[in-house]
Amino acid sequence: MSSVAIIGAGPSGLAVLRAFEAARETGEDVPDLVCFEKQSDWGGQWNFTWRTGLDEYGEPVHSSMYRNLWSNGPKEGLEFADYSFDEHFGRPISSYPPRPVLWDYIAGRVARSEVRQYIRFETAVRWVSYDENTEKFTVTSAHLPTGKDSSQEFDYVIVASGHFSFPNFPSFPGIETFGGPVMHAHDFRGAEGLRDKHLLVIGSSYSAEDIGSQAYKMGAASVTASYRTSPMGYDWPDRFEERPSVVRFENETAHFADGTSKEVDAVIFCTGYLHKYPFLPEELSLDSPNNVYPEGLYKGVVWDANPKLFYVGAQDQWFTFNMFDAQAWYVRDMILGRIPMPDPAERAESMARWKARFEAIADYDDEIRFQGDYVQDLIDRTDYPSFDVDGVVEIFLAWMRDKAADIMNYRDYTYTSVMTGTQSIPHHTPWMKELDDSLERYLS
Amino acid sequence: MSSVAIIGAGPSGLAVLRAFEAARETGEDVPDLVCFEKQSDWGGQWNFTWRTGLDEYGEPVHSSMYRNLWSNGPKEGLEFADYSFDEHFGRPISSYPPRPVLWDYIAGRVARSEVRQYIRFETAVRWVSYDENTEKFTVTSAHLPTGKDSSQEFDYVIVASGHFSFPNFPSFPGIETFGGPVMHAHDFRGAEGLRDKHLLVIGSSYSAEDIGSQAYKMGAASVTASYRTSPMGYDWPDRFEERPSVVRFENETAHFADGTSKEVDAVIFCTGYLHKYPFLPEELSLDSPNNVYPEGLYKGVVWDANPKLFYVGAQDQWFTFNMFDAQAWYVRDMILGRIPMPDPAERAESMARWKARFEAIADYDDEIRFQGDYVQDLIDRTDYPSFDVDGVVEIFLAWMRDKAADIMNYRDYTYTSVMTGTQSIPHHTPWMKELDDSLERYLS
Repeated sequence: MSSVAIIGAGPSGLAVLRAFEAARETGEDVPDLVCFEKQSDWGGQWNFTWRTGLDEYGEPVHSSMYRNLWSNGPKEGLEFADYSFDEHFGRPISSYPPRPVLWDYIAGRVARSEVRQYIRFETAVRWVSYDENTEKFTVTSAHLPTGKDSSQEFDYVIVASGHFSFPNFPSFPGIETFGGPVMHAHDFRGAEGLRDKHLLVIGSSYSAEDIGSQAYKMGAASVTASYRTSPMGYDWPDRFEERPSVVRFENETAHFADGTSKEVDAVIFCTGYLHKYPFLPEELSLDSPNNVYPEGLYKGVVWDANPKLFYVGAQDQWFTFNMFDAQAWYVRDMILGRIPMPDPAERAESMARWKARFEAIADYDDEIRFQGDYVQDLIDRTDYPSFDVDGVVEIFLAWMRDKAADIMNYRDYTYTSVMTGTQSIPHHTPWMKELDDSLERYLS
Repeated sequence: MSSVAIIGAGPSGLAVLRAFEAARETGEDVPDLVCFEKQSDWGGQWNFTWRTGLDEYGEPVHSSMYRNLWSNGPKEGLEFADYSFDEHFGRPISSYPPRPVLWDYIAGRVARSEVRQYIRFETAVRWVSYDENTEKFTVTSAHLPTGKDSSQEFDYVIVASGHFSFPNFPSFPGIETFGGPVMHAHDFRGAEGLRDKHLLVIGSSYSAEDIGSQAYKMGAASVTASYRTSPMGYDWPDRFEERPSVVRFENETAHFADGTSKEVDAVIFCTGYLHKYPFLPEELSLDSPNNVYPEGLYKGVVWDANPKLFYVGAQDQWFTFNMFDAQAWYVRDMILGRIPMPDPAERAESMARWKARFEAIADYDDEIRFQGDYVQDLIDRTDYPSFDVDGVVEIFLAWMRDKAADIMNYRDYTYTSVMTGTQSIPHHTPWMKELDDSLERYLS
């Protein structure tokens, strides 16, 4: 019996556990599985914590979510093909659920299975090494409550620790003179404290858009978003504007590249995240910008330099949960020997072909279609339930149009599931008016 | 030639480097030294950063200092015996200098030496293992800017990474509903943003006292300090009060154990720090509350379970820089063979004796005298310049009296150096009025 270490029990790690469970249910012999999870519960990013910086064990906090986060993409784009929203909630819900609702859905699938037994919670992986002679990995981990460490050998390692937890955190001249709160989006936990405040968000991607909108919703006096290359360009409401790069801070005044300045009360760096795997030696460690085709991964999952190592969920994401599933089922089948590992030349040829296509991506529409084709390519090769990937691509394209048309209200729009054909229903309260993000309120 | 790894280039690690340098200057053959430092410069805690949480490489931020921190103990208690304040500044200064002034002093001693060449900056130690057969340590580290890791063998390891960097961060019911800033003192960077705000500090030790006072100085509307066992009991000014434990939060309202409640704008956990060495296996890892006699360390520095491993600066501190020096010189002399390593029975006997005395400590006066005797015991055994340890004890006792008499102004008091006999001079501006903490302003 071979053995597999899975690092992380968030959506990607859980997808892997679920994939092996599905094989076991059909009578297949599956390897010994150990899933290492630093947190005390599963869910990864979706396991919200009020904590920031370092947690109760002095470990970097994993989740970058804030209290009042709602999905910023339609749930119809991320639905599991083997576990629908209808199956979980028993009735139609809206397309942009708040955080606790999505957590409930993710956890719901695995709670019905036996996979929890494989997870070592509150256990941080400290170091992974690979022995060329034995062809085995040694995973050294620490049980955080007791401090006990242990080392264990595995035939395969699957890295599913995510890449939205370690902030990309640049500096600006004079930032050390800014007297108000300065934080990265990773440490943002809620906008209640921003009421009547002037907020500066640095960045022009999802975090800037979403945290800026949330602060606006919660009554910020103004929101200024600073972009490096181009503005988000939405039709922002009054009190919400975009300006070019910050060139320096002088106490509470931010000076911008266009010569303007603004006094602000708080600064949030929405400057993205790093691929960072402090437990991996360099030769096993993915090093990439956040994009849809990180280099070095055959089929987006096999670490080409050592094909006993896999990554799940390492891409920038349009497709999320169902892409992790597509990857997890594919990795499982490689480990089970159902899919043979191609030789290096064949892997190189495949990677070159995908890379050429990746480099030809011209806009977001292209990128969505690229990722759709990638997902399709994987699910065609396993027994993961097939679904209408092109239909999901269309949902993402509609989402982008709807956002462009109505940035502050797009979460009130509805879409139709390609899994079940269910048309979502509007939430009982428009997003801009809904201040209670709880599961109970949502389902009421 | 033997080899020594030193983990950390803060005051303790620099003391070790300086100790070996001093031996080299007298013609002694010294081991190969490699000092691993995660930050881009030396100084440890004293190397201030505006960053919080995770740094530009996604590593936990080391320094817990805030912009406007001043020494909270008289500099006469921490003066190096081999490098006086007079030698560094060329004239008398005040007894409680601000952060940049103390950093300048620490850095000044080592800047005159050749020790910088031994330091690998921006290099984080990932894992240390010990091989019983070869009797060598393997230190695996990562160069943060490049991600390159390397492993190197050493005969000795000296842990000098400090124990005021990983927050002890308890939880309280309802804390997740608090909408304003919630942080640990570790992530507090300045009180400017607290003007006109109601601040709650949780704790009753130095961080609570100091951050509370700083917020008061910077114009907080009120400061409430919550104690678990007993209040600090100082003669606080109006707008500064102590209350018992928080039992729960309800949004922005803190409820206390005495049944009272208060609405506050910000919460700072001044709940101390953990001994945490994520790069060490459990059998090498000190696990202790913060106290003046952590268990398992012969002479406070030798890891009894493996006497090729040393800790410097692991104690709670009254004496600081000169205690690190006393320890560093002692560790150096053990490694150089000038001081023989006693056998386990002799070490156990010594530790039992000190532990009995530690357990008999009744109050802070006792604790200060305990630490004075400990420092004396070490410096008596090496060529570190002897100094009037009892005189320093008297300075600490005077400091405690002065604080009790005048908590908001004690930093304006002056003391006399036991190293040089120099009487310090009052700073040109009282602490409560001084809003510019820079070195330039201080020396003007």
